[in-house]
Amino acid sequence: RRKEFAEVIFAQNKTPEETALIAQKLYERHGRFLATRVSKDHFDAIKKLIPAATYNERAQTSACYQEGDPRPGTPLIITAGTSDLPVALEAEETLKFAGFKPLTLFDAGVAGIHRLFASIDLIRKADVIIAVAGMEGALPSVVAGLVSCPVIAVPTSVGYGANFQGLSALLTMLNSCAPGIGVVNIDNGFGAAALAISILGLKEK
Amino acid sequence: RRKEFAEVIFAQNKTPEETALIAQKLYERHGRFLATRVSKDHFDAIKKLIPAATYNERAQTSACYQEGDPRPGTPLIITAGTSDLPVALEAEETLKFAGFKPLTLFDAGVAGIHRLFASIDLIRKADVIIAVAGMEGALPSVVAGLVSCPVIAVPTSVGYGANFQGLSALLTMLNSCAPGIGVVNIDNGFGAAALAISILGLKEK
Amino acid sequence: RRKEFAEVIFAQNKTPEETALIAQKLYERHGRFLATRVSKDHFDAIKKLIPAATYNERAQTSACYQEGDPRPGTPLIITAGTSDLPVALEAEETLKFAGFKPLTLFDAGVAGIHRLFASIDLIRKADVIIAVAGMEGALPSVVAGLVSCPVIAVPTSVGYGANFQGLSALLTMLNSCAPGIGVVNIDNGFGAAALAISILGLKEK
Amino acid sequence: RRKEFAEVIFAQNKTPEETALIAQKLYERHGRFLATRVSKDHFDAIKKLIPAATYNERAQTSACYQEGDPRPGTPLIITAGTSDLPVALEAEETLKFAGFKPLTLFDAGVAGIHRLFASIDLIRKADVIIAVAGMEGALPSVVAGLVSCPVIAVPTSVGYGANFQGLSALLTMLNSCAPGIGVVNIDNGFGAAALAISILGLKEK
Amino acid sequence: RRKEFAEVIFAQNKTPEETALIAQKLYERHGRFLATRVSKDHFDAIKKLIPAATYNERAQTSACYQEGDPRPGTPLIITAGTSDLPVALEAEETLKFAGFKPLTLFDAGVAGIHRLFASIDLIRKADVIIAVAGMEGALPSVVAGLVSCPVIAVPTSVGYGANFQGLSALLTMLNSCAPGIGVVNIDNGFGAAALAISILGLKEK
Amino acid sequence: RRKEFAEVIFAQNKTPEETALIAQKLYERHGRFLATRVSKDHFDAIKKLIPAATYNERAQTSACYQEGDPRPGTPLIITAGTSDLPVALEAEETLKFAGFKPLTLFDAGVAGIHRLFASIDLIRKADVIIAVAGMEGALPSVVAGLVSCPVIAVPTSVGYGANFQGLSALLTMLNSCAPGIGVVNIDNGFGAAALAISILGLKEK
Amino acid sequence: RRKEFAEVIFAQNKTPEETALIAQKLYERHGRFLATRVSKDHFDAIKKLIPAATYNERAQTSACYQEGDPRPGTPLIITAGTSDLPVALEAEETLKFAGFKPLTLFDAGVAGIHRLFASIDLIRKADVIIAVAGMEGALPSVVAGLVSCPVIAVPTSVGYGANFQGLSALLTMLNSCAPGIGVVNIDNGFGAAALAISILGLKEK
Amino acid sequence: RRKEFAEVIFAQNKTPEETALIAQKLYERHGRFLATRVSKDHFDAIKKLIPAATYNERAQTSACYQEGDPRPGTPLIITAGTSDLPVALEAEETLKFAGFKPLTLFDAGVAGIHRLFASIDLIRKADVIIAVAGMEGALPSVVAGLVSCPVIAVPTSVGYGANFQGLSALLTMLNSCAPGIGVVNIDNGFGAAALAISILGLKEK
Ligand SMILES: Nc1ncnc2c1ncn2[C@@H]1O[C@H](COP(=O)(O)O)[C@@H](O)[C@H]1O
Ligand SMILES: Nc1ncnc2c1ncn2[C@@H]1O[C@H](COP(=O)(O)O)[C@@H](O)[C@H]1O
Ligand SMILES: Nc1ncnc2c1ncn2[C@@H]1O[C@H](COP(=O)(O)O)[C@@H](O)[C@H]1O
Ligand SMILES: Nc1ncnc2c1ncn2[C@@H]1O[C@H](COP(=O)(O)O)[C@@H](O)[C@H]1O
Ligand SMILES: [Mg+2]
Ligand SMILES: [Mg+2]
Ligand SMILES: [Mg+2]
Ligand SMILES: [Mg+2]
Ligand SMILES: [Mg+2]
Ligand SMILES: [Mg+2]
Ligand SMILES: [Mg+2]
Ligand SMILES: [Mg+2]
Repeated sequence: RRKEFAEVIFAQNKTPEETALIAQKLYERHGRFLATRVSKDHFDAIKKLIPAATYNERAQTSACYQEGDPRPGTPLIITAGTSDLPVALEAEETLKFAGFKPLTLFDAGVAGIHRLFASIDLIRKADVIIAVAGMEGALPSVVAGLVSCPVIAVPTSVGYGANFQGLSALLTMLNSCAPGIGVVNIDNGFGAAALAISILGLKEK
Repeated sequence: RRKEFAEVIFAQNKTPEETALIAQKLYERHGRFLATRVSKDHFDAIKKLIPAATYNERAQTSACYQEGDPRPGTPLIITAGTSDLPVALEAEETLKFAGFKPLTLFDAGVAGIHRLFASIDLIRKADVIIAVAGMEGALPSVVAGLVSCPVIAVPTSVGYGANFQGLSALLTMLNSCAPGIGVVNIDNGFGAAALAISILGLKEK
Repeated sequence: RRKEFAEVIFAQNKTPEETALIAQKLYERHGRFLATRVSKDHFDAIKKLIPAATYNERAQTSACYQEGDPRPGTPLIITAGTSDLPVALEAEETLKFAGFKPLTLFDAGVAGIHRLFASIDLIRKADVIIAVAGMEGALPSVVAGLVSCPVIAVPTSVGYGANFQGLSALLTMLNSCAPGIGVVNIDNGFGAAALAISILGLKEK
Repeated sequence: RRKEFAEVIFAQNKTPEETALIAQKLYERHGRFLATRVSKDHFDAIKKLIPAATYNERAQTSACYQEGDPRPGTPLIITAGTSDLPVALEAEETLKFAGFKPLTLFDAGVAGIHRLFASIDLIRKADVIIAVAGMEGALPSVVAGLVSCPVIAVPTSVGYGANFQGLSALLTMLNSCAPGIGVVNIDNGFGAAALAISILGLKEK
Repeated sequence: RRKEFAEVIFAQNKTPEETALIAQKLYERHGRFLATRVSKDHFDAIKKLIPAATYNERAQTSACYQEGDPRPGTPLIITAGTSDLPVALEAEETLKFAGFKPLTLFDAGVAGIHRLFASIDLIRKADVIIAVAGMEGALPSVVAGLVSCPVIAVPTSVGYGANFQGLSALLTMLNSCAPGIGVVNIDNGFGAAALAISILGLKEK
Repeated sequence: RRKEFAEVIFAQNKTPEETALIAQKLYERHGRFLATRVSKDHFDAIKKLIPAATYNERAQTSACYQEGDPRPGTPLIITAGTSDLPVALEAEETLKFAGFKPLTLFDAGVAGIHRLFASIDLIRKADVIIAVAGMEGALPSVVAGLVSCPVIAVPTSVGYGANFQGLSALLTMLNSCAPGIGVVNIDNGFGAAALAISILGLKEK
Repeated sequence: RRKEFAEVIFAQNKTPEETALIAQKLYERHGRFLATRVSKDHFDAIKKLIPAATYNERAQTSACYQEGDPRPGTPLIITAGTSDLPVALEAEETLKFAGFKPLTLFDAGVAGIHRLFASIDLIRKADVIIAVAGMEGALPSVVAGLVSCPVIAVPTSVGYGANFQGLSALLTMLNSCAPGIGVVNIDNGFGAAALAISILGLKEK
Repeated sequence: RRKEFAEVIFAQNKTPEETALIAQKLYERHGRFLATRVSKDHFDAIKKLIPAATYNERAQTSACYQEGDPRPGTPLIITAGTSDLPVALEAEETLKFAGFKPLTLFDAGVAGIHRLFASIDLIRKADVIIAVAGMEGALPSVVAGLVSCPVIAVPTSVGYGANFQGLSALLTMLNSCAPGIGVVNIDNGFGAAALAISILGLKEK
């Protein structure tokens, strides 16, 4: 079990060479792989061993796999600001790798809250929502107040000063009064997707 | 929507009188209510206005409602130690109030990890698992390594010293390498149940 | 200058006797006084020396003064939940003591956000708004998104767990993306009122 | 409403290209824009799309707008030291963009406190004061003790050691005993100006 | 050497009985003793064994000794507010026990800063100053700006909210820009006196 | 006594030149030396003075010594992930320098826990175990649950977000419920080896 | 295996009744038990079920067991001050329960450091040393500088102010430059003994 | 008064040009200056305006002044390790600038504690001691236990892991049980010297 994640590499603290070798081993064994936190240097090393590998620079992910039939269930990814994009894209790539077709609604935070309310139909379509936000991190609360599906809150390290590298958003999300929210680590787009995949698994039982 | 939670009162920072009055209002309007963080004094005030109200002292909850047909979906609550019980029971009472029949596996942490492995069949039956642990808080990681259903991690303030009132368990859970974990606030049994209910809602879609 | 505040006593770390003696001295010199953080014991001591003194138990304030003509300017106090009331009332008593007639909108946080939107006319009437909230502390952000007048954010220590005695709400408010917010200390209803009074002073220039 | 801020871009976590494109869109729609946290690279990208854009390197702001008639109300910006200048200048540029003519008194902290007292007439002219300080952050307290107008306290990350990137100054300002102080995030010159603008709005009601 | 301190007991974490026995032993050996952090219960136990022992309830000290000729050197103790008194008195009792005649200037903080300036002659008389303050803790900075003698800064735990039990005042004092300040632990009146005594020792060399 | 450590240099905060000179002095006096936290620049400087010196780049150690007969006692080093390797290798080099032959089991954390259970015979052979882990840091707990020999827990700074540079793993290890664990500083492979050597010394008594 | 610890109960977060029942079950199964963090209330409940149980009030332990022949190996417990005694006694009771005869050297901290040096012969006899200290927590460093056997450092929560409930002593011990130190949780006398027992186990291999 | 410090510049957050201009202004007005936290770039700018200026690269100070007759009083600077040298040298340069002839004893920490005891005669000569240490920061305690003159404790940011950039050493020093210690900010060699100068001023009264 946990087959989706056996083929995933977390590259951040690995050398490009190590990462490429693990990717190759996974690719040979499973015919597919996904790597997260992949720098340009990491990707160059991967590319040499797996020419068919692709790179999403903004998401910092590299992957190589055959798309299959989409799995049932509708995940939605919402971000508060432009700067939260890399984290949201890491989640999106992970969901795609697992066979889902995620909906997205980017830049819908405080400044763009009208876009959130304008998109209420989209939002209500979701089976699970990943809400990504930095700074004060209020987005997941607002979203969870609008829907009854589960909301996965991802604090980002975007901000400055008393934001303390994402601590402020993290605490906000953990203290949310709106019911139905589960929190993952700061900047953990992959972890949010993994939780969403677990949840969507209920549709296939 | 969110109808389960419109009838829930968080008593902790309210006077007994306030709490009882809100309970009464909810009870009159909806024919049911649930109150959490209910001290003995709170309950005495509630009892005067709603004689049929019951009290679970360990869970610190009071409620009054008609049990209906059980809803589909199997939540499981696991605790690491005896001391995590109040938090687990708060979650259990909330799940029951929402119409579910939670399974439980208490005292299955480090000391009793053999009980965890011995209960693998029970664990695999769950659609969603609430894993409650204090101190080092490693339980949710271990559980999430055994199943593919979503795991809701609840850190408790049980411990002492460098535990810093639950901070240690909270950080452990947020940093877990095992995929499929969502974290709620320290000691937040109600929030864990609310997230579980959101997730189980997928079964009724 | 600062004449409003020369007659204010902060009783929290003073003995009842000390507090009563300072109150008496101020009352003799200025014909009026206000004391904040006044316990029942403090008030009993004050009452003995100044029989005309009144006590607002919930606000923990005691005062004795002649109401004059109301000063120009409309402060509004909004709270997220019932538990934030003591802090809001400390602010209200201070504003009244300074000669203002504060509007109030209590219990308008996440759970009651519809009440916030329903009260938009009231909110737009305000010259300055004091927004009081604990837990995740998102209220001031939401309010500041609806108005262009200044918003004074007061985090409260209401909450538990990763709330860390108000730290979570404090950080949320400091990191708010909504422009026009100034933050005061946790639970500092008096300080919020003092800032509001400074701001309303512009109406009298 | 909030029309001053719809035309403001926070560039810090955006790529130069994103920033330039948003600036262009705002400039086309409103005929004006202001960007904060603008690095040299950001500005180069902006300059290509909006040749008339100017750059204040010290303030890290870029803007393009037509100066109108000055709006009523006198904001004053005071800094404790030379190193707080960038934050003060971000506030100044924002105030100018909003149509105000800010007074300034730089380098008036502990070392230059005599300059503060020597400038008492200037200080008393202000309708609202922005006091910017790092290290121990005592300036806003001292200033608030001299005036009855509102004081906006901006902690800066200037310092070292137990300053913890501005935490020390932030805590000092939140704990100030002097009434009439509102605090914004560390290094948040824009936020301080935005609050000042909200306050000065009372003059136009 | 260090003979002043061999006769001092820190009672805080000792039982009344332990404390009394140590006091008795010191008293027998040296003919004198000083105990700090002495509760009423502690003193009752001491009194039984050493009937001549005295108690300063506010300072929480108990002592028994023969006053000798005053030693050369003038220590001055200044406090910001009434609530800092216990800490200041602990320092005063310690200085007296060591044979000094401390000057005092209480309640000279922000609210009473005029009293500080009015007492400039007293302040300039001091060879060493102990400045005690809670909340924002700005007093030692202001004092050190007025004198060239050493200033010992004592943060107190007086305050609430973002004061974090004295952390705010401690950080302020450590980050002071005024030269000539040494900081001791929060509420450590004894430690401040001990440092003052070390310094005044230079007069006897 | 402590003869193993008199010949060890901690290079991290020393210049290459300083480091090389100390190494040379030790080498001349004792005929051997070990340096930890040795960058490429440090090693180049050492190499010039001690041509026979070797460099383990991953471990960041440099050394020059004659291998003797192995000392009695079996240390085992286990790591959770690939990224913890540098810390584990620093420990391994230190153990070798002290005359031991460490066993190793790398990459046996959550993802590879089956490898841990599969290696139970190896694990039971150990007289002392050094367990190295970042992120959530649960490895030492799991290991200590399997053996009765002492377990030395080394938190690493590997991770991100709420990991706070190793704080999360450190707290997990300090709060472990499994008996028989001693914790050293974050990333302190040398310190772990030093403690292991102290323990193995009991075999030679 | 780990048979010493299967018979130990941590009573702190258990009710007296729960504790007594577990004690009874252990006593019936193994003919012996040890309980730590036992309040007077806990003990009263135990006493009712196990009349032969004894209570060490200072150590807060209760136990019932047959002393056997002493096991080989010499543990030594050193404390810095009188206030660290309860933690040291918890360690002592645990060592005795496991069959060891611990040596002790109490009150040998800074104030009594001459006693430490005077006891050098005793110290050198030890196979493993448990060093218990609060406040600044420097004792383990000093001890580890005198011996080559392993030193187990136990920070205690004794102190006040910037001690932050033992955090200061904990950090000191983790950062010690003296090699051969392993740290356990704040106030964790039991954990220190458990580690010592693991280490002494090498003598029986 | 405070004439020593009117001629001192803190360069850290100033541009080279600003720094050089202030240096020049001071040099013209007073015929002397001292600048701290001076990078190579800063010094190049200073050199251009004041060719006679000297640079101590390790201390990061630049100065230009006429040495006068030495002032009475003997300051001594002690460091724990080689890495603390820059902070110690900043203190030394400041003391020299003020006219003192500081004694020094470098590298006398735990590893070299025998050097401390061997230098006891030197240590006892001092009128005031500046003790500089990172990591665990125990040096000032040990020193203060040996002398009765005042000890100024300077924590440094030297270390790693749970050292948290000097926090560990800072807390150790604030919690020291040895009487006669005053603490300054992390890495604040200048501040330590300034306090020493204040203290030595008593010799000239
Ligand atoms: N962005 C991410 N954050 C946290 N964990 C991840 C991430 N990407 C992959 N992982 C997990 O990290 C594990 C890989 O650890 P490693 O053995 O160091 O490669 C995989 O099992 C993944 O589940
Ligand atoms: N709730 C409050 N929070 C903060 N400051 C207060 C409060 N109430 C009164 N104060 C201020 O505390 C000062 C009184 O300090 P004290 O001299 O100790 O009485 C007054 O100048 C008030 O401005
Ligand atoms: N220096 C600044 N600090 C904080 N917020 C800012 C700053 N400059 C602009 N902003 C706000 O950031 C928002 C822009 O967010 P974004 O959608 O990421 O561009 C605007 O609504 C501004 O109110
Ligand atoms: N990686 C390391 N971490 C902590 N301490 C170390 C390390 N490597 C060597 N040491 C110790 O640091 C001491 C050297 O300190 P120093 O005088 O600065 O060279 C030696 O006695 C070693 O015991
Ligand atoms: Mg919802
Ligand atoms: Mg799983
Ligand atoms: Mg607004
Ligand atoms: Mg004022
Ligand atoms: Mg001074
Ligand atoms: Mg074990
Ligand atoms: Mg040793
Ligand atoms: Mg001394």
